[in-house]
Amino acid sequence: MPPAHPFDEDKLKEECGVFGVVGVSDAANFVALGLHALQHRGQEAGGIVSHHPESGFASARRFGYVRDNFTKASLMETLPGSLSIGHVRYSTAGSKGQTQIRDVQPFFGEFSMGGAAIAHNGNITNADELRRELIERGSIFQSSSDSECIIHLMARSLQRNIPERMKDALRRVEGAFSVVAMTRTKLIGVRDPLGVRPLVLGKVGDGWVLSSETCALDIIGADYEREIEPGEMVVITQENGVESFHPFERKKSRFCIFEHVYFSRPDSILGGQSVYETRRQIGVELARESAVEADLVCPVPDSGTPAAIGFSHESGIPYGMGIIRNQYMGRTFIEPTEQIRNMGVRLKLNVNRALIRDKRVILVDDSVVRGTTSMKIKDMILDAGAKEVHFRIASPPTAWPCFYGVDTPEREKLLASHMSEDEMRDHLGVDSLRFISLNGLYRAVGEKDGRNAKSPQYCDACFSGEYPVAPRDMIANGFEVQAAE
Amino acid sequence: MPPAHPFDEDKLKEECGVFGVVGVSDAANFVALGLHALQHRGQEAGGIVSHHPESGFASARRFGYVRDNFTKASLMETLPGSLSIGHVRYSTAGSKGQTQIRDVQPFFGEFSMGGAAIAHNGNITNADELRRELIERGSIFQSSSDSECIIHLMARSLQRNIPERMKDALRRVEGAFSVVAMTRTKLIGVRDPLGVRPLVLGKVGDGWVLSSETCALDIIGADYEREIEPGEMVVITQENGVESFHPFERKKSRFCIFEHVYFSRPDSILGGQSVYETRRQIGVELARESAVEADLVCPVPDSGTPAAIGFSHESGIPYGMGIIRNQYMGRTFIEPTEQIRNMGVRLKLNVNRALIRDKRVILVDDSVVRGTTSMKIKDMILDAGAKEVHFRIASPPTAWPCFYGVDTPEREKLLASHMSEDEMRDHLGVDSLRFISLNGLYRAVGEKDGRNAKSPQYCDACFSGEYPVAPRDMIANGFEVQAAE
Amino acid sequence: MPPAHPFDEDKLKEECGVFGVVGVSDAANFVALGLHALQHRGQEAGGIVSHHPESGFASARRFGYVRDNFTKASLMETLPGSLSIGHVRYSTAGSKGQTQIRDVQPFFGEFSMGGAAIAHNGNITNADELRRELIERGSIFQSSSDSECIIHLMARSLQRNIPERMKDALRRVEGAFSVVAMTRTKLIGVRDPLGVRPLVLGKVGDGWVLSSETCALDIIGADYEREIEPGEMVVITQENGVESFHPFERKKSRFCIFEHVYFSRPDSILGGQSVYETRRQIGVELARESAVEADLVCPVPDSGTPAAIGFSHESGIPYGMGIIRNQYMGRTFIEPTEQIRNMGVRLKLNVNRALIRDKRVILVDDSVVRGTTSMKIKDMILDAGAKEVHFRIASPPTAWPCFYGVDTPEREKLLASHMSEDEMRDHLGVDSLRFISLNGLYRAVGEKDGRNAKSPQYCDACFSGEYPVAPRDMIANGFEVQAAE
Amino acid sequence: MPPAHPFDEDKLKEECGVFGVVGVSDAANFVALGLHALQHRGQEAGGIVSHHPESGFASARRFGYVRDNFTKASLMETLPGSLSIGHVRYSTAGSKGQTQIRDVQPFFGEFSMGGAAIAHNGNITNADELRRELIERGSIFQSSSDSECIIHLMARSLQRNIPERMKDALRRVEGAFSVVAMTRTKLIGVRDPLGVRPLVLGKVGDGWVLSSETCALDIIGADYEREIEPGEMVVITQENGVESFHPFERKKSRFCIFEHVYFSRPDSILGGQSVYETRRQIGVELARESAVEADLVCPVPDSGTPAAIGFSHESGIPYGMGIIRNQYMGRTFIEPTEQIRNMGVRLKLNVNRALIRDKRVILVDDSVVRGTTSMKIKDMILDAGAKEVHFRIASPPTAWPCFYGVDTPEREKLLASHMSEDEMRDHLGVDSLRFISLNGLYRAVGEKDGRNAKSPQYCDACFSGEYPVAPRDMIANGFEVQAAE
Repeated sequence: MPPAHPFDEDKLKEECGVFGVVGVSDAANFVALGLHALQHRGQEAGGIVSHHPESGFASARRFGYVRDNFTKASLMETLPGSLSIGHVRYSTAGSKGQTQIRDVQPFFGEFSMGGAAIAHNGNITNADELRRELIERGSIFQSSSDSECIIHLMARSLQRNIPERMKDALRRVEGAFSVVAMTRTKLIGVRDPLGVRPLVLGKVGDGWVLSSETCALDIIGADYEREIEPGEMVVITQENGVESFHPFERKKSRFCIFEHVYFSRPDSILGGQSVYETRRQIGVELARESAVEADLVCPVPDSGTPAAIGFSHESGIPYGMGIIRNQYMGRTFIEPTEQIRNMGVRLKLNVNRALIRDKRVILVDDSVVRGTTSMKIKDMILDAGAKEVHFRIASPPTAWPCFYGVDTPEREKLLASHMSEDEMRDHLGVDSLRFISLNGLYRAVGEKDGRNAKSPQYCDACFSGEYPVAPRDMIANGFEVQAAE
Repeated sequence: MPPAHPFDEDKLKEECGVFGVVGVSDAANFVALGLHALQHRGQEAGGIVSHHPESGFASARRFGYVRDNFTKASLMETLPGSLSIGHVRYSTAGSKGQTQIRDVQPFFGEFSMGGAAIAHNGNITNADELRRELIERGSIFQSSSDSECIIHLMARSLQRNIPERMKDALRRVEGAFSVVAMTRTKLIGVRDPLGVRPLVLGKVGDGWVLSSETCALDIIGADYEREIEPGEMVVITQENGVESFHPFERKKSRFCIFEHVYFSRPDSILGGQSVYETRRQIGVELARESAVEADLVCPVPDSGTPAAIGFSHESGIPYGMGIIRNQYMGRTFIEPTEQIRNMGVRLKLNVNRALIRDKRVILVDDSVVRGTTSMKIKDMILDAGAKEVHFRIASPPTAWPCFYGVDTPEREKLLASHMSEDEMRDHLGVDSLRFISLNGLYRAVGEKDGRNAKSPQYCDACFSGEYPVAPRDMIANGFEVQAAE
Repeated sequence: MPPAHPFDEDKLKEECGVFGVVGVSDAANFVALGLHALQHRGQEAGGIVSHHPESGFASARRFGYVRDNFTKASLMETLPGSLSIGHVRYSTAGSKGQTQIRDVQPFFGEFSMGGAAIAHNGNITNADELRRELIERGSIFQSSSDSECIIHLMARSLQRNIPERMKDALRRVEGAFSVVAMTRTKLIGVRDPLGVRPLVLGKVGDGWVLSSETCALDIIGADYEREIEPGEMVVITQENGVESFHPFERKKSRFCIFEHVYFSRPDSILGGQSVYETRRQIGVELARESAVEADLVCPVPDSGTPAAIGFSHESGIPYGMGIIRNQYMGRTFIEPTEQIRNMGVRLKLNVNRALIRDKRVILVDDSVVRGTTSMKIKDMILDAGAKEVHFRIASPPTAWPCFYGVDTPEREKLLASHMSEDEMRDHLGVDSLRFISLNGLYRAVGEKDGRNAKSPQYCDACFSGEYPVAPRDMIANGFEVQAAE
Repeated sequence: MPPAHPFDEDKLKEECGVFGVVGVSDAANFVALGLHALQHRGQEAGGIVSHHPESGFASARRFGYVRDNFTKASLMETLPGSLSIGHVRYSTAGSKGQTQIRDVQPFFGEFSMGGAAIAHNGNITNADELRRELIERGSIFQSSSDSECIIHLMARSLQRNIPERMKDALRRVEGAFSVVAMTRTKLIGVRDPLGVRPLVLGKVGDGWVLSSETCALDIIGADYEREIEPGEMVVITQENGVESFHPFERKKSRFCIFEHVYFSRPDSILGGQSVYETRRQIGVELARESAVEADLVCPVPDSGTPAAIGFSHESGIPYGMGIIRNQYMGRTFIEPTEQIRNMGVRLKLNVNRALIRDKRVILVDDSVVRGTTSMKIKDMILDAGAKEVHFRIASPPTAWPCFYGVDTPEREKLLASHMSEDEMRDHLGVDSLRFISLNGLYRAVGEKDGRNAKSPQYCDACFSGEYPVAPRDMIANGFEVQAAE
């Protein structure tokens, strides 16, 4: 059961996944597989760059799924070599206009000492400022992506080799970033000082792998070695293996807690913990915090499933699949007729009426964003004859936008930004609605004493409003950062 | 949870789904939605025919998924009118050569009294014989499909109207068929005398719907009215509503029991029973018949899930998702590189290692066909550190091919055709392997006293070898029909 | 210089070209080349059927040019074998609705003694009648093409082999037809009793070729053997070579004289005469019949060029290219913007102003159909500063529609159907307008004494209104056949 | 008669055409038409940029013909505004590797004072040097095109507005260039100081047009105003009309004489002279210089036609079309089968055997490059039964490569680089071979006293080896510039 959710439009979206490999023949094929396993982190487009000593750098960037593009022999043959990196990106449709193919990573730059390609997961919070400064000095930007700044900063560095130029560049960059890059001979990985986005190191045969998640190591049969540390840069060559650097000022780690709740795949390991088990444990905590009498614990598929299993175990209330997902919905309808658009929910989900009828139903979902789909699901369940509907949410109220590489609606569109739990319950018209507490969530991810309010162990800005890095461009645009209520 | 299975190549395949609607504007849009809900019954290709009084008949047939073809406004606008039928067909790749677009239904024939289109789920067991006879008399076949016989038989009927011609034609046809057809004004549905394949009637607004399954009524908000009876023909017009005929000699019903086990969607209702609940009950029966000490009940996703839930409930052993399915695998890789092809399983599934390690695991799957994928799954589970692996199968051993519209391997390729349960266990190398008994399966579908051996309530030829209709063409080709052991 | 014309929409259109070859390996490649050379006879779509003893019949039908479809190795590999036929068809857009791929020839039929494919150039004048009769008896038509009748008539023949069945069928057919067909081992060619459409026999290596025109023999390096005679059927096998039959009642030949004027390529040989030389000779005759003082003889490119050269030679007036054709206009703009559509002429032609200015210009064109483009050309020439414009037309006034395989506007849209030569001159606003006389045209094609009015040597119905075969279906629809004025 | 030639692979190729318009609504539609008329200057790819005050800059770049891409309403609607420029580029297949879409112009750069797009016809002879220098300073190149240097030089200029930045940039650039560029409000045109490549100014309604050739003014109904002068920059706005600047040191004009011979369309006006008339005059000069007794003057279509007409007029030998071009060959076969590739010539040309047989034939062609196709044509003509073959070439021997925007083979591949006229005659195996003299060519283009050897009026480096601008990058790569023999 993958973490996707039938109501993608009402979910927070991870914007990227990165993957790189060095030291195996036909490296790009491994990258394609890795990106396929990371597809849930970005479904709009993908790109792969490879390098072969004879033919030099090659690259391909395509809209659509990895499986539809990077599985064709005719394309993969154009990406030879034993060193390759890749990137998948999420659709950020609407708000920012249509993505152009030139916005699709990896980005490539030719420097006087040779070329480099770079793929980036995260968000640079001072990108606007950097871009203005670089244009003023004569840089020509080709994309609207914040990540392109890194390449231009590198081009202007006075350092004599590419890893040093990358250090120079990343020291000017603020925000969250997990970077996978390559030169003609080196695979490079970097995490920002807070380690907000994940990045792991693996070993496959004589080669090395960098990946956003461990599930992409599994798909190619690679062994998990360790996480890249917050603030660490690794430079990997076939000859010398992994060299580690710490180019930034040391800070306390603030990993994104929402990766545990929703973004990462349940079969990945984050910080040594199984994501599936963490989510099951969230369900256990939730059952402890907000028990209710009922006949059925029913997940909102597919992302609510592990928490629902945990809730059922802890509460003793039977688990059942009251909502059936249409498996052929992986891709949204590109050009739907009006009639179809208006049927949204039914296209993706159907209620298992025989199971729901006359039951008191606990619905377990991972989060509430705008609340629009919670409303539709409640309607479906009541139409099917449920006696009571109780929502249990596997995360605290999402009240603040993320500026670290996750696509969130504007603050005022987040239901929890202007409603209390009780107001939301009344708004949704359900018999009860309970979110897990922030402390409960911290306990589920393994912090026995819960959240350390003075120095939180994770980045939980979307729940708390406490931003570990000031979102400089947003503040310049008028966003007001506050402490959480 | 839809009935699809990550190892499609080792599953029996339903070959078709049919859908038709009369009396609603833009009927083809409803048909597109209905076919989308029936996509699990046929994923290779789909076709829609509609009729509008001004522009006459229109048709579109396409390879690929409904969502990728019949959602484009530019195509749907070419299919106007308030009367429309459609069809999805399964890929029967390999053995029978490449499907041509001319093999994609509905088929259309122009008769002297007007045109008719016809879509067919099932298989005509005397099609070869009929085709030879028709060609001898001067009919030109356009496809390699058995279903085209029906149109040619209709063209040669001496009857003066289309429903009567269809009766004439279907009385010459042997085998299993659920037919949805249309003339300029009539929607027609027929089930063969044994009622092997499903066909239901629904109501939407002032219009009427025919569908292979009820889940396709739900998607368009139609109300379920009743099943078409075995041997019944309904002729539906906007003016006169539903007229019922019984053109065939009456026989005792023999519905396909495998529809309950695997083919139909879990949110459909078959014979008044929830498919999900039937499958859960199979899990309960299975737990009763073949209990074993273990730490975890784990479904083989997605089709084994309801039975696994039932098994867990009955046995008290915790339910957990030990195998994670990659949601982006709905479509198989068209042109995979060699390297990817060899990684088959990992592309589609990943093991939840943290959950499996050191556990005694019960794996619940719906069926064993060739056994190739059971083998791979067992390997994955053991690699992940399971202490014991126990397979529990939600159907009896599949030992005989189906000739009634399901794509099965040749008999000798069915593992159960030449191995006992114990031999299969040793072959697969698992700690135990148990299938549900035929009586247990009958009990789960609601026959309290189990199977009536003298007059079985269902078609169970794939388990028993007792074929309710002699497969004439196959016998002519040398197939030996026997009674089950 | 090929016969195409920049104002295709105001030209008569040949509807088809046929080509077949037996006795060479990879025969379909030769057919592709032959069809490419015949592309001027039909530009909308093309199809090729081939047969290989191991894989049986194979076929491919595509919209668009031969060069865009039948040059791809991936497609051509699907058409193996040493026996193959093909067909190109013209766009008959508008009047008859959109062509479907099922209307594209060759047509294929499976008979009890094996399959046959058939490609047809011409028009069956009793097709409606035949179709009604065949449907009444139970034939199912798949296309809207008149040519499909032949296959159904063959299917119902009581003869025991395919050539005999084809004779049976073609004896029921009225109109003009040059047919190229194939069975598993035989290449078959037939011309109707009047021999209205061309068909020639060639030899390439050990194999044989049938083609609409000799220019398609040249492209594959085949030697021209002879024309198939009017009313002749040839049956060709690799073993026995060419066998000749005369299945029809013998009639006097009436070859289409317009093939000489416009349809055929100038590098083809018709009835032993060079088409280029005939057209040049038309120019000579025209100069004799309708001399005028002028400074420049200018062809309307490209089809008017040979006659303009002849006119210049005979008259002594210098030849010059006053109109320049844009070579990139081979294909019409599929989806032009409104703005572009309104610029029609300039897109395709430009005037050579420096040459035209202050000159008395003789424009030589091949025919006048609706007169719309003659008007536009005259405007262009006057805008460029010509002092006088004299039209000389290389065919007599086109006053009657063709029913023998040429796409003509309805009679009332033909300018010459309701205007005299002088009225046309005034209508077009030119200084003079003269058509070649019917006798002049006959002299140019080699009939020294001109037309034999009692028994014309050619079909010239489009000029004379004398139809050598009564257009039965058209008469049933109300068309009044008359003698020419 | 367009300037294209059936043996494109053995011709010099113009590499680009440019077009721009300001002051008309839907300007991009005009650009599409203009580029269509300039298609002969570049057939591989095309691009258009437009600007609309509301939506800003928009751009589309596509491989393939203008008519296949920029005629679709769906695309053209994405290019709104009253200011637009465009570019077509030639295929430079093979030598330089595959073109990427990012190499297709116009190029766009965002500067601090706004964006600019630029399209360039010509070649920058110090591009390698400039690129190295720019990369050293931190510029990131996106293409392999020499033209991208201009944008980066502009980005680094200290000037405060775009026209001034462009002057700065172009003063650093050496070689031949005709540039069309645009800002949000200005259309800009520049020609290099020698004026090697053409650029003309036109007026359409209230708007202004810049175009490589006048034939593209005709297609949109624009009036020809004047040529942009060598070394001139024009800055055009809707408000202020045309402002003229002369930013470069003044030099004597050296326009490319080969534009008269082959590159430009015959209906264009160059330097006040009709290209068609110049070419006819070349034929006249050629007949005077190298008369021979013969029966037929035959052009190698299509580019040899005007000279053949002139030769026939002057010599009195009849003109005739001995070689027929297949009109459907505009686009080369993308993926030809081996068999087809080997038939090269026949695919494109066919001999008019009836005309050629037993004749002494003068073949008039525009140039001889490698000589490979002259050989093939000679073979065809002799195979068709010609008694004698005399080649007359409308240009002097092409002995030197061009470095000013024309794609020429390396020097050693030019037949005339290592053979005298007599050696070439023997090599080709023809009865006689004569090129026009360099003085004859100068007389034909209007220089009554022929070439001024001390200060040639044109760039004729391809004939004389006298390069008016030292090809700096080529010299750095080892090319030895010499004076002509």
